[in-house]
This record gives sequence, C-alpha cells and structure tokens, in this order.
Amino acid sequence: MQTKDNHNDADHLFKKRHSLAHLLAIAVQEFDSSAKLAIGPVIDNGFYYDFEFSEGKSPSSDDLKTLEKRVRHLIKQSLPFTCVEISNTEALSMFKDQPYKVELINDLAKEDKKLTTYKTTYEGKEFIDLCAGPHVENTKEIDPDSFTISHLAGAYWKGDEKNKMLTRIYGLAFNSKADLDEYIAKQEEAKKRDHRKLGKELDLFVFSDVVGKGLPLWTEKGATIRRELERFITDEEIKRDYKHVYTPDIAKIDLYKKSGHYPYYKESMYSPIVIDEEEFMLRPMTCPHHFELYLSKPRSYKELPMRIAEMAKLYRYEQSGELSGLVRVRSFCLADAHIICKDSEQAGQEIEKALDLIEYVTKVFGIHVGVDYSYRLSLGDRSDESKYFKDDASWDTAEEELRSVLKKRKAPFTEAAGEAAFYGPKIDIQMKDVNGKENTAFTVQYDFVMPGRFDLVYKDSDGKDKQALVVHRSSIGAIERIIAFLIEKYAGAFPTWLSPKQVAVLPINDVHFEYAAEISKALKDAGIRVHLDESKESLGKKIRAAKLEKIPYILVIGDKEVEAKTVTVEGRSGNLGAMSASDFTSHIKKEIETKSI
Amino acid sequence: MQTKDNHNDADHLFKKRHSLAHLLAIAVQEFDSSAKLAIGPVIDNGFYYDFEFSEGKSPSSDDLKTLEKRVRHLIKQSLPFTCVEISNTEALSMFKDQPYKVELINDLAKEDKKLTTYKTTYEGKEFIDLCAGPHVENTKEIDPDSFTISHLAGAYWKGDEKNKMLTRIYGLAFNSKADLDEYIAKQEEAKKRDHRKLGKELDLFVFSDVVGKGLPLWTEKGATIRRELERFITDEEIKRDYKHVYTPDIAKIDLYKKSGHYPYYKESMYSPIVIDEEEFMLRPMTCPHHFELYLSKPRSYKELPMRIAEMAKLYRYEQSGELSGLVRVRSFCLADAHIICKDSEQAGQEIEKALDLIEYVTKVFGIHVGVDYSYRLSLGDRSDESKYFKDDASWDTAEEELRSVLKKRKAPFTEAAGEAAFYGPKIDIQMKDVNGKENTAFTVQYDFVMPGRFDLVYKDSDGKDKQALVVHRSSIGAIERIIAFLIEKYAGAFPTWLSPKQVAVLPINDVHFEYAAEISKALKDAGIRVHLDESKESLGKKIRAAKLEKIPYILVIGDKEVEAKTVTVEGRSGNLGAMSASDFTSHIKKEIETKSI
Repeated sequence: MQTKDNHNDADHLFKKRHSLAHLLAIAVQEFDSSAKLAIGPVIDNGFYYDFEFSEGKSPSSDDLKTLEKRVRHLIKQSLPFTCVEISNTEALSMFKDQPYKVELINDLAKEDKKLTTYKTTYEGKEFIDLCAGPHVENTKEIDPDSFTISHLAGAYWKGDEKNKMLTRIYGLAFNSKADLDEYIAKQEEAKKRDHRKLGKELDLFVFSDVVGKGLPLWTEKGATIRRELERFITDEEIKRDYKHVYTPDIAKIDLYKKSGHYPYYKESMYSPIVIDEEEFMLRPMTCPHHFELYLSKPRSYKELPMRIAEMAKLYRYEQSGELSGLVRVRSFCLADAHIICKDSEQAGQEIEKALDLIEYVTKVFGIHVGVDYSYRLSLGDRSDESKYFKDDASWDTAEEELRSVLKKRKAPFTEAAGEAAFYGPKIDIQMKDVNGKENTAFTVQYDFVMPGRFDLVYKDSDGKDKQALVVHRSSIGAIERIIAFLIEKYAGAFPTWLSPKQVAVLPINDVHFEYAAEISKALKDAGIRVHLDESKESLGKKIRAAKLEKIPYILVIGDKEVEAKTVTVEGRSGNLGAMSASDFTSHIKKEIETKSI
Repeated sequence: MQTKDNHNDADHLFKKRHSLAHLLAIAVQEFDSSAKLAIGPVIDNGFYYDFEFSEGKSPSSDDLKTLEKRVRHLIKQSLPFTCVEISNTEALSMFKDQPYKVELINDLAKEDKKLTTYKTTYEGKEFIDLCAGPHVENTKEIDPDSFTISHLAGAYWKGDEKNKMLTRIYGLAFNSKADLDEYIAKQEEAKKRDHRKLGKELDLFVFSDVVGKGLPLWTEKGATIRRELERFITDEEIKRDYKHVYTPDIAKIDLYKKSGHYPYYKESMYSPIVIDEEEFMLRPMTCPHHFELYLSKPRSYKELPMRIAEMAKLYRYEQSGELSGLVRVRSFCLADAHIICKDSEQAGQEIEKALDLIEYVTKVFGIHVGVDYSYRLSLGDRSDESKYFKDDASWDTAEEELRSVLKKRKAPFTEAAGEAAFYGPKIDIQMKDVNGKENTAFTVQYDFVMPGRFDLVYKDSDGKDKQALVVHRSSIGAIERIIAFLIEKYAGAFPTWLSPKQVAVLPINDVHFEYAAEISKALKDAGIRVHLDESKESLGKKIRAAKLEKIPYILVIGDKEVEAKTVTVEGRSGNLGAMSASDFTSHIKKEIETKSI
C-alpha cells in the first residue's frame, strides 16, 4: 500500500504507526484512567494496542470514534517524542501501577537488554511508555487524516489462552489519506469477493456440522466447476503424455513407513483404521502409491520419463481453529503427479515441462507468471538433519539443476533457505490472493531420497539396473484451493466454460414459454448448461435473479423473438442484440471451447 | 447345463451325482484301505467327497485318473443301490472304524432323525455308506462317460478351520458326455475371460501387498476405461437432470447414527478415525451425505423430484478370504443417486425413469434386459423387526408401487421375500456372469424411513411442510464391478470407445517412422488414443503385440502408404484396406461417438 516502496519510506511509515499506538494509549487512559496497558506494536496495515479496561469500561464503536478524534487532536498539536534510556530498577518503579509492563520488564531483564522509554509531552502532561522505538520526532510528521481506529477484538495476553483476555484496539494507518482510502476500498472489494461469502451466496458448497468441520459438500453448481476443472487438467495432462491413474485413498501404515512419511509427517496424518489386525491410514500423500504402481513390473530406460498423474484425494490434519472455507480443509483433491526420471538431466527437462504446463493452465485462468505469481527456489537447510535428508552431493546437484532451469526461463525468482521438502529442493509457485498476500500455491519438487527407499530402478541401455530420480509436481494444486482462488479472482463471475449455468432463458410471460422451452432444449442438446426460468415472476425480477447468479448470458424471449424466431442476447459486457438460436449456439460454443475469459 | 430343465430330470441327475460320490468312495478305499470317509454331497456341477488319507497316501493327479477309471469300471457292472434303515446303535457299531461317520451319527441322534444307509454290492463285496439318499436304483442309469474326477483341494472338516484339514475330491457329472463337454468348454472360456487373469495380462490394474488387500491400483490403461465409464455415466445422468455433486468420503460417526446405518450396518464399517476427540468413519453409504446437502436450505415442492447423484467412493468391510479381483473389494466407487420425491406417485415415476436409464446404459454395453439380466422385486420380511423397519402400511404402499412399475414395463420379474433394505422394498437387477451365475448387480430402492430420520421436508403448494420420500438407485453399480463384468463379457477386447489404446500405428521400418509419427500426431490431435510402436521389432512381432493388447485398429505404414499418403487399416473383423488418414479419423471418431459395440 506504500506509495513508494523504498526502505526509508517504509521505516518512516513504521515510525508513524508506532507513534499512533502511543497516542491511542494516551486517549485510552483519558477514557478509562484505570486501564492497564499491555503492548502496542506495528502491523502490516497499521498498529494495535492491547488494554485491560476497568469493569464496565470496554469501549463501544462510538467510543472508538471518540478515541480517534482525540488522537487526531493530539497529532495536530505537533507533539514531540523523546527517547530516554532507563535502568531496570527505574523501570519497575516507573511502571509499578502497570502489571503488564512490570511483567515485560522482568522478561526483558532475563534477556539482559537495555531498556528504553519514549516520552510524549502534551497539554502540560507527560505520557511515558516502555518501548524499543523508533518513533517520529514530532507528530507533525503524521497526516492527521491518514489513519483510522478501525475495530476491536479480544486477545489473550501473550497469545496464551491460559492468560487473561485483553481488548485489542486496531488502527489502520498509512502515509496519506489517499493511501488509507485506497486500502479500505481494496479491503471492501476483497470482502465482497471472499470465497466463503460468495460460495454461500452462489450456492457452490456448504458445510454440515454432522458431517464434520473442514469437509466441504459441493452442491450441483460447485460440483460443475470442479468437474470442469478436473476434466480440463486431466485432459491437458494426458495430451502432454501423463499417465493418469487411480490409486486407493487408504493404505497400510507400512507403506508410509517405507516412504519415510510416517516419522516425518506423522503430525499431519489421522489416526489409523484397524482392519483384521492391520493398520490403515488415510493417505496424506500420493507418492508411495504411484511408486507401488511403478514397481508392479520391471521397467526399462525406454519407459522413462514416466509421468504418473492422478486427481488424488488426500487427508491432512488441520487444527479446527485453522480451518477456513476451501483454503484450509481436512481433505482435498490434489492434481498430483510423479515423474520417474533416468537422471538429473532428464529431471531438469521434466521440471521445465512441468513449469510450461503450469504457465499454460494458469494463463487459461488469466493468471500470469511475473504478474500474479512468481517462482521461489526453496533450498534445504543442510545443518538440520531432523528435517532434511543428509546427502550434500545430491542437494548440490539438485539445487543447481533447479536454479539453472529457472535461470533459463528468465523468470524472476527468489531463493529461500530451509523451505525444501525433506527429500530435496523445490520450486514454489508463490501466488498473491485478493488481499495481495503471497502463499505457496503449489510446487515442483526434486526427490533423490524416495527412489532409494522404494528401490525405484530401471534397466538402462547397458543392461544394468540403475536408480531413478523423481520429480513431484502439481499443475493446479488442490482443486479446493484453486476454486477458492478463482471465486475471488472472478468475484463469482466465472468465465463461461466454468460457469455452473451458462445461459438463462427468460420467457417474458406464459405465451412465450413454449418457444423458450424449445430454445432451452436446443441449447441443452448442444451441451450447454441452460437455466430456463419457469417462475411467474416479472421479467425484471427474472433478470435480477440471473444477474445475481452471475449467469454469463441472458436470453429474453418475448413476442418479437417468438415471431422472428430469434433470441435477444445480453452478455456480461452488454446487449448483443437479436440473433438466431443457432448463431448464438455457435458463438457460445466457441467461447466455451477456447475457454476465453 | 441340463438338457431339459424339468424337475424329474433334475432329480435324476441329483441321484446320479450322489451315486457317483459313493462309487468314488469305493475306489478311494481300494486305493488307501485306511482312508477315513467324511461326507460326499452333490453340488451344482457334480459332487465331491471329503477323505482323510493315511500318511503319504494323498492322491496325485495321476491317481485321480486311476480313480476315475475305476469308477467308470464300476458303473459298467450295473451295480444296484439299496436303502436300509438302521438304528442309531446299529449305525455306531457298523461305522465304528470311521470317526467322521461316528460324529455325524451322534450329531443326527441329537436331531432325532431316522438313519438310512445305502448299500452297493460289487464284485462280491459290499460298500455301505451312511446317507440320506436318494440314489439311482442301478448304475446302468449312469452314462459312464458323463463324469470326470476333476481336481482335489483341502477342506476343513465341517468347514471349521479349527478342525482337521481333509482332502476333497471333486467330480464333474452331467446326464451325458455331450453335456459334460459343453460344461468343460464353457468353463475354459470363462477361465480365459476371468477378469483377474485378463486384468493382469492387459495391465489394467494391480494389487500391492504394502498398500493392502482388496485395494486395486489402476494403471494408465485400466484408469482410461474407468475414466471413460465415469464420464459417460455422469454426462448421461446430467442429461437426465440429475444434479451431480461431490461429498466427503469421511464423516462424523454421528451422521451414521442419525441415519440408522450405524446399528444396522456396523459390521460392514471400518473402525473410527479420531480427530480432535471426534470420531470419523469411512463412509459405507452416500445417502446421509446427500441428505445433508438437501437440508442445507429450505426446499419447495417446485424443486422436487431432486435427483442428487455422485460417483461416490465407499468403504465396506470384506473378510480377507472373500476378496476377489475387482468384484469383492474393500473400497469401491458407486454410481449412486438419491431422488427426493414429493409422494409415492412421484417416487413411482422416478423408479420408472431409473429403470429407463439402467436399460439405456446397459444397452450401450450390449447387455439387455430379459437376456443378460432380469428384475427381482425384493420384499421385506415384516416379521423380522431387527432387520426391517416396522411400518406395515408404508411397506404395503411401497411394495405395490414397485410391483406396478414392473408390471407396467411388461418385463418378467421374480419376487423374493426377506431381500429388501431395512428402509423399504427394492428392485434388484439380477445379472448373470460369464459362468451363468446370477448376482445382484445393482438396485433401485424405495425408502420411507430415512426421510423421517433426517426430517427431509419440503414446503408444499398449500404452504405446509410435508415429508418427502427417497428413491436410492444406481445406474451402473460399482465401477470396479462393472469393469470386471465388462472385461469378462468382452474378453478384454473392449469396444473402441472404451479401449485404453484405440489405434496401433506400426511403421514397417525406420524409413517409415516419420510418416507414422505424423499420422499418430494427427490422430492424437483428433482426441484418439494412439500407440505408435517405436520398437525395432519385425512387423510380425509388432502386429502380434498389438493384437495381444486387443487394440481395435492396426495401421501398418510401409512404402506404399508413405507414397500414397494413406494408411492400411486392420480392424478386429479383418482388413479394411487403404484409406486416407482423414477418412480413417472420421470412421473411428464416429464409432467412438456412437459408442458402437
């Protein structure tokens, strides 16, 4: 949100936000003289301050407005901030009435840190807070309209639920009113696009308490989007010579012990299911299943690279508090693949092809590398043998192979240490959500560990058995997550090929119904998803309903259309006028086939 | 296998088979004078007899041939069978050297049954067996060439694995040599078509010990068949206004307690998975999941019938010894649907439509009602309240509704008491496998119980809330089972639309490779599954390999084809001659689109 993204600007904004937190504390102490002060740090979009209010003194929304006015008034007085170093003993004495500050002072004493306070003199009084700084020199550096006190929420002292619940007051703060307004507008837009909100409004998926948390049930409309996506990616992968398979969603615990997932990944797996004294697990990963398929017969170098792909249901533990819409679920369907390669050169080529595929499918969605997402090369932390397999030479080869693939593409990328999988380095596709927040959407991984564990060998041209390498990759990640992303990206107005309903046919009244039904049938026979509105509502209401559902095309059928044997077409971009049903069918079919956005 | 299917004939065949078992016992006692005799009943295709042989006296295959010869020789002597009633005490004395007979006599004594023995006098000796009969009067009634001693197998005494393992000798026996030969020929054909054997030979699916029993892994080729089937049935159902959804494969145990599956179906469910102190189950059924979707918002009569469908993965317990290929598995994918109906009239209409769909999809596979399958009306046993929900009036209405649907279709059907689901009667689709054995392939069920348990209501036109009815149905049953059936039906030579590889392109040698690759690419671009044989083998070997894989079309590319820019096509029915690549593409595309068989 910063107008210029240079370091000094960012530092200065930090100081302003931090100073605003202090001014808020002044206002709060005026509002409730017995309020206890906890901490008041800077955050991404502003600042907050945690307080313990006296009984019955918790502020209302109106009170927040009063606090905001008071802070604004303080800013306008051009108040100075001064830093004073003090000893531990002085601090304990100075903050003796502030139990949270006392606790902080004692914590800091253990760490042998110097203590600083910041003092603000205002209206003949002094406000001193225990604080590492830095702050503005004077409040005149702050635009009085560049902030707002936004909301409050409960927060446990030190984030520990065993501690007392405090009141956290949030402020949004930027360099200017323009920046603040822009941020608020974007936030509101993001809220409107929230996939949980739109998913409900558009009836795409639901949750059921009795089915369980984090387990979405897809309605007809949501399932249509999912089916289209699954078929699109499956067909595209088959075109690119992937072998699509189906493997079981459960397997004996022995399989995950063999793969090494069990010790490394145990915390993310669910409890075993006992069948005839054997333990079975809901799979958290597809790899060992695909390896078992590879191992079902002897393999030759001529069969490699072998690209084994699956739309694979996976089960991973998420804490109940972490579950969120389609983004954090307990079961998801991953567009997964494992490419068994002869050697690191072939692995490098396959990684390139995997990135080609990713760039192709994301382009179909209107998401572009360098704009909406970027690559991150995630390296292993060689010193941490509990998380990373010990084999320096293989790490070197693999990391260099991935780095050279990225360099060759000329795509900008960052490098991140300690972010690799335990079996090798990876390329992460880092995507921004509607809030501009970056997440790892999916990855392409290099694996030199599992081929050894599973004894994935092939007979080479010289007749000798050699050990393969494996590339793990996803093309669109988890179906649940990509749909959440696309709902927000398109704000529910999916491109026609993905729209659950592609055409709404609206007869103006009863006499137009027969022709409307005829048109609907013709479209349906052509494979188009049609919604014929058979209600007795007015045309206005029918149009509103179709627009609320974000149906891309609306065909109004009245006297004129019945007479001329035409349809009058309204698309999302406006009125397309009257045309024959067959012309409209060709138009929409072409749009669907080319997946245009 | 009987030449005429009347009762007397069947009775007579029974007598002959039973008598053959006694003659086998004579021959066995001559072979091992200390052999102990257990039981020798008649079975579907002949008879068996269980023996305990003395140490080192177990018969070899050659010995079986000797036994067969001896039985044949006995038959030819026109030996009489006579029935003699004896007392328990007499029996115990008579069979004092036969411990299994003694045990049987004691068992029979408890039941207060009269004892009979059958005596055969041969070559001046007597053979008497404890036996309820009946037998032929004289062995001259038996055609000496109408039987064969086929094989032996281990069998526990009384089928209990805690008892001693005996040797069971099997005999095939029919009325005539012609009947026997026909039976053996059909058995051999069935063995060749066995889906487990063909599944392995054609590389369609595999099992892995470390993944677990009863959990197939589908290779690329098997997965292709599965994907085609799933898409076919999903698309056909959508055309018929089913709402295809996705719901989770696990749910809280509470859901199955709510549905009542848990007490009724517990034995078939796997052990719970504990997540954050809640118990989750692998679902054995889809119904409660679909009901939760229905319940996600208030419903109106205008929305009914609501046909909720899913390709649903289900998990049901099968004993390890019962698992068999794709037919008995521990996890399967059911083409499932639940149709929420207003009333019994609407339910009747929906059941008719479900049967229409079943008759349509089976016809696509070349399976016809009245020929390959028949309907069975399965009724509840009202007296058994532990298995059937108590509500006589609803059972009456439902059973009559199903009966009238079947009568209206004029399809022959049988009625079976005590075969219903616990929640209502059903129509079973009884299909014969390649051995001619009838199994329930899938069902259409009427349910008046779950709508009450789940409170499945709708607002009727009069504004009142009314309780719905539910039709449970499958269209092609479990994907695993239908594929097993189709593999055997087609003996692996799938119709082109289902064939994993549709065209083999075989360049005669290197110089033809470029044009072969060009043809392959054109076919692949047209969406056809092509296999380009890039090996250095001879054309003969390439053709043999393609035929072994049962690829429907073989295109040979040599000088002539390169020059004339044609392809020479061999189909399954023979040589189709030379044609342009585009003519061949049109030909095969039409065949695929029409799903011709």
